[in-house]
Amino acid sequence: MERILTTQATSHIGERVRLAGWLHTVRRMGGVNFIVLRDGWGMIQAVTESEIDLEPLQTGGLGLETVIALEGLVVAAAQAPGGLELHEPRLEVITPVAEAPPVQLNKREIKAGLATLLDHAVIANRQPQRRAIFRLAAGVMNGFRTALSEHGFTEIQTPKIVASATEGGANVFQLDYFGRPAFLAQSPQFYKQIMVGIFERVFEVGPVFRAEPHDTTRHTNEYVSLDVEFGFIEDHFTVMALVREVLAGIFTTLAQGYPAELERLQAALPTVPGKIPHIHFSEAQDLILQRHGVDVRGEPDLSPQDERWLGEWAQEQFNSDFLFVTGYPMVKRPFYTHPDPERPNYSNSFDLLFRGTELITGGQRLHRYEDYLAALAAANLPLEPFETYLETFRYGMPPHGGFAIGLERLLMQLLGLPNLRLTTLFPRDLSRLVP
Amino acid sequence: MERILTTQATSHIGERVRLAGWLHTVRRMGGVNFIVLRDGWGMIQAVTESEIDLEPLQTGGLGLETVIALEGLVVAAAQAPGGLELHEPRLEVITPVAEAPPVQLNKREIKAGLATLLDHAVIANRQPQRRAIFRLAAGVMNGFRTALSEHGFTEIQTPKIVASATEGGANVFQLDYFGRPAFLAQSPQFYKQIMVGIFERVFEVGPVFRAEPHDTTRHTNEYVSLDVEFGFIEDHFTVMALVREVLAGIFTTLAQGYPAELERLQAALPTVPGKIPHIHFSEAQDLILQRHGVDVRGEPDLSPQDERWLGEWAQEQFNSDFLFVTGYPMVKRPFYTHPDPERPNYSNSFDLLFRGTELITGGQRLHRYEDYLAALAAANLPLEPFETYLETFRYGMPPHGGFAIGLERLLMQLLGLPNLRLTTLFPRDLSRLVP
Repeated sequence: MERILTTQATSHIGERVRLAGWLHTVRRMGGVNFIVLRDGWGMIQAVTESEIDLEPLQTGGLGLETVIALEGLVVAAAQAPGGLELHEPRLEVITPVAEAPPVQLNKREIKAGLATLLDHAVIANRQPQRRAIFRLAAGVMNGFRTALSEHGFTEIQTPKIVASATEGGANVFQLDYFGRPAFLAQSPQFYKQIMVGIFERVFEVGPVFRAEPHDTTRHTNEYVSLDVEFGFIEDHFTVMALVREVLAGIFTTLAQGYPAELERLQAALPTVPGKIPHIHFSEAQDLILQRHGVDVRGEPDLSPQDERWLGEWAQEQFNSDFLFVTGYPMVKRPFYTHPDPERPNYSNSFDLLFRGTELITGGQRLHRYEDYLAALAAANLPLEPFETYLETFRYGMPPHGGFAIGLERLLMQLLGLPNLRLTTLFPRDLSRLVP
Repeated sequence: MERILTTQATSHIGERVRLAGWLHTVRRMGGVNFIVLRDGWGMIQAVTESEIDLEPLQTGGLGLETVIALEGLVVAAAQAPGGLELHEPRLEVITPVAEAPPVQLNKREIKAGLATLLDHAVIANRQPQRRAIFRLAAGVMNGFRTALSEHGFTEIQTPKIVASATEGGANVFQLDYFGRPAFLAQSPQFYKQIMVGIFERVFEVGPVFRAEPHDTTRHTNEYVSLDVEFGFIEDHFTVMALVREVLAGIFTTLAQGYPAELERLQAALPTVPGKIPHIHFSEAQDLILQRHGVDVRGEPDLSPQDERWLGEWAQEQFNSDFLFVTGYPMVKRPFYTHPDPERPNYSNSFDLLFRGTELITGGQRLHRYEDYLAALAAANLPLEPFETYLETFRYGMPPHGGFAIGLERLLMQLLGLPNLRLTTLFPRDLSRLVP
């Protein structure tokens, strides 16, 4: 008999079918046995009063996570999970297990501590709640690509082994490249700008590497960056308008394609306003003084507390989970940032706050060769490591800009998770190189 | 006036429009001036008899690759490229250039040598033929993902910094991970197998890193791997059936979404047969003896010449660009390869030859814990580096298998290019770390 998936059972009511997957749960209640099979997409419950049906499991060890095939009659059963049950089940062991899994996979609440979950991620990620997070990760990537393809963007793949640190600074992993020093890309920033000269509108989904030597709940040392860059913009407001479209596209994809995962995680998708409200950095500081009596004017950046206050204000004022803060001071932004032509100490850049926490950073970049020479000189940076990057700007580059979304950061904030590591299949941090 | 793209001009015949892009060509022919503008998607020609219209370019330097805006009246013109022309053009310089580009971008034939093309890739990749290759790369990724999503596969992103070399061997880049040695992943092999335990069907598109210390036309040290792995297979023939579906999906996507690029590159897409022919490794060696009088029986692998011969045979016999060779000897396959239960010196693995050259490698993997212990012992490999990988197999794994396609390899063979580097935006090889 051809195997069907758990998600297909609903169209086979009254038929005998064959399913395959993992033994998720066995329960005995007053002479009735319940067997739950989990496959890659969902679960189905088989019911039997006979002990004989469990025999193959007993000889094989009766271990949870045994790989099994299960034949049975599909019956509508309002009280069963998913409204279906398998009756008269016949069970077959495909691959037995030798011992109980190191984490419980069949409880609604995950009891294991973070370290246990991560140490045994190869098994713990089989847990349906964990799995739903990673399915949503696929949905975010899918929604991101779909939204950008609809706007004429081309996907690129740029090198991860690079000759020099992207944005300067020490937080870069060094490797031995055939006897020469090389580095892991901290971002595809330079390459995506270069690619504006080729395709005008580009995006990339790929790993980035940050050798930040501190342990926080909001950072890992390797993560997935969703990068966008495009040309012929007016200024950073053109970029912000695209951010809005991309976010709306991501959440639409999740709503349409991942309802079961969202329900399992009890995640409420935000509404992306038709126009996301924005406030200038300096006005944001004024607002904080007015509303909270704290004078942060003169600070070159916003603190997490400042961001929370602004998030509350956006909720009250605009009923919005999102708020753009524009015009961050140039001193805190990388050398390729375009200044505000009217107030050159401020930049044509932005952060997007989502529920009071920074989610996306972006802005307009410099596009004139002379401006790059001046910016590098002002930052006391040598020209040589930037030679091929600079070549791009010698031959005509339009005004351009872009942004980057951290995939894991988006999931963490969307799902209200306490630690970024919970959104990463196999996280890399100061102490963690395996699994 | 709102900017339109070159590809949108055809729906504006008889209207005055504004375009923007790069100055691709300026030609003067008997008092008539032709200006070709290139944007991210195509080109359009403007015609004028007046010299005055070129003035903005002259003051700005008249350099090719100047970023310009071009307003004009869209006129149908059968003799013009694309069947359209802009009349009464008005030209505006957005970003001037200072000098001529280091490679000619507006000739049909690329005259520059490989080294020049690669050294100046940030500019050379603007060349329409070069650009078409990279647009097709996006199409291949898109077709790959679409085909697999239709079959219920979930996209994953697995770590690129790993604690030990994936497949053993010395061809691995080492890096300093906070004072500890770590490596760049040679493939997502272990992770994609682990993920079969979680999602059953997974794919990944991402960079892989091979520290192979030799210079060939068919290798680079970082490339994009299209990886697939799935569970509940019968044997490697289930995997081969999926390979067929995925290839057909990729070529359908290219045919439907990228006709202009295929035409520019004069690329003929292959027909993927409803069932791709296959031949066992040992029969392939017998066939070579019969047809060519060369006795390669006893060799553990096929040579490039053998592959060419087999490709010719598949053309003659089956009129097929594709041929599976199955059952490669176990001695040449990695330790996780599943043997042929009937003839354990041969494996349940395959290579797919495309036009006489290996394109895809795949097969069935071991899935029982004991088999892994035995295989590692037989290969004289220690258990410790494989600890978390092995944990997966202690808790129930179904028969599974998969395959990998090198994105650049597929493009090289599809387009008949002489060097893999030509299919890579910014290749990494023994001597090349920039751009």
